[in-house]
Amino acid sequence: MLLLWKNVVAHLDDETREYIIQHRLQDRYVAIFLLSDNKASEVYVWLKAKKAKMLWLYADIKLGKERGKEEILEEIQRCNGDKNCVGVMVQLPLASHLWEYEMEIMNMIDPEKDIDGLGSLSFWLSAFGVNNFLGATPLASLKILEYYEMDDFVWKVVTIIWRSNLIGKPLTMELIKRGATVITCNSKTPNAILKQSLAMSHYIFSATGQKHLVCEKILSEETCTLYPESISLDQKVLVDIGRGSENGKTYGDMDREYFEDKVKGITPVPGGVGPVTVSCLFNNIIWDEVWWR
Amino acid sequence: MLLLWKNVVAHLDDETREYIIQHRLQDRYVAIFLLSDNKASEVYVWLKAKKAKMLWLYADIKLGKERGKEEILEEIQRCNGDKNCVGVMVQLPLASHLWEYEMEIMNMIDPEKDIDGLGSLSFWLSAFGVNNFLGATPLASLKILEYYEMDDFVWKVVTIIWRSNLIGKPLTMELIKRGATVITCNSKTPNAILKQSLAMSHYIFSATGQKHLVCEKILSEETCTLYPESISLDQKVLVDIGRGSENGKTYGDMDREYFEDKVKGITPVPGGVGPVTVSCLFNNIIWDEVWWR
Repeated sequence: MLLLWKNVVAHLDDETREYIIQHRLQDRYVAIFLLSDNKASEVYVWLKAKKAKMLWLYADIKLGKERGKEEILEEIQRCNGDKNCVGVMVQLPLASHLWEYEMEIMNMIDPEKDIDGLGSLSFWLSAFGVNNFLGATPLASLKILEYYEMDDFVWKVVTIIWRSNLIGKPLTMELIKRGATVITCNSKTPNAILKQSLAMSHYIFSATGQKHLVCEKILSEETCTLYPESISLDQKVLVDIGRGSENGKTYGDMDREYFEDKVKGITPVPGGVGPVTVSCLFNNIIWDEVWWR
Repeated sequence: MLLLWKNVVAHLDDETREYIIQHRLQDRYVAIFLLSDNKASEVYVWLKAKKAKMLWLYADIKLGKERGKEEILEEIQRCNGDKNCVGVMVQLPLASHLWEYEMEIMNMIDPEKDIDGLGSLSFWLSAFGVNNFLGATPLASLKILEYYEMDDFVWKVVTIIWRSNLIGKPLTMELIKRGATVITCNSKTPNAILKQSLAMSHYIFSATGQKHLVCEKILSEETCTLYPESISLDQKVLVDIGRGSENGKTYGDMDREYFEDKVKGITPVPGGVGPVTVSCLFNNIIWDEVWWR
């Protein structure tokens, strides 16, 4: 079964819009810092501004790739303190002269407004179980599963391929929290171990950008019979968070054609996690009352 | 082979003392907040004060279980700003009226002085690879392995049993960072999965407090033959971070008697990770220059 983005996005946007109405946040703004001239970043920021409008919010795009660190930190501080501002995000990558300040800039964002979830306190609050906040991309991969009611992790085994700060690590912490036995793999995971891990898993998340890393050679009914505690393909859910392109065609980490009719569920690339990410960014303005301060 | 604490502690204390001399920190102090009348806490604090003295430092024990949150936060702030203070720690558990402020109190400690590693920024800086800081207990479990030169994690599989904020989660992040494929288990890990995970692992860390959870029934040459990618017992390193007692006798998570002559290495309880922890607390005053601020 293909787990497609469309209904998930509609559902999430409805939820966000409802929250906005209930809390009278119409016409408030989300501050989006675009501090580079990266073309892809410009497109993403534009998509986010469009989504903001759809949700009756306003996107205040803060430009200025030449600006110094201090000026940027001050402006983030102003957004933190402005009650008309419901979220702050900084589009990565930064212009090169700002690279060394990336952490400082990210950590300046008030956790209550850190809709992208890149600051330290956001990560820790969530990892340690104080709240359930997750950055937009890992959140998107779970929101799809929730929508299709394939998000029962207790007693289950999950393999996560790749250990990035943006996806692999927060996802590892989140799924540990949700009761899964989590296997986190990386480029130094021997092939045989990866094969065995995939065989024993109910859920597989992959975010390497390597074309069809998860394919028949490494995961099939046959490889599953090799290991005593295997889960058959038709019980497996595959979440593809990879994204690459070859000759103008976008592809993911998983060989969708091969798995599509065999597994319980698979998110395709394109058309799966990607488009849900922007909706999750805005869904993150929903901030439950917290007790920690 | 038994991986015993004694030489590890001597080595760590030498390192700490050398740093203290080099940086002329003799007679500076570590602030230890003891904010409860828990008997075990009193013993731990006393052990820490003794170690401080051995290292030519001074332990300033801050008492006051009746004190309010604001007063405590102010005193932590004073320690943060005092250049004679080389470390700040708060002994847990707190008195019950302070429970709701635990996170706030922990997060008030300057990361540079957070020798126990319980604050959010410490966890994040380390998880995200900015520095290599770890809390005293997870650090102790790795320092023993370093001492015995059994700390090569690249290409290796590690199973961590238990997902606590103090041990399981930081250890998971650290070992992911160090290149291991990490399997994090919890009480909802099916027995068969645990068995398979243990069989395929080079390193096993356990911190449940459940007596002899890791025993012949779940890990033996026989269970290892069940799985294709198993690592034989004589290649395995077992790290026991559990601690319980029965009829006045201390025991760990692992059946030491059974494994002692079969595995490459095992840390016994008592006499393994426990005594190394206090040394690691003080070893954590060694703070490398950081670039993040």
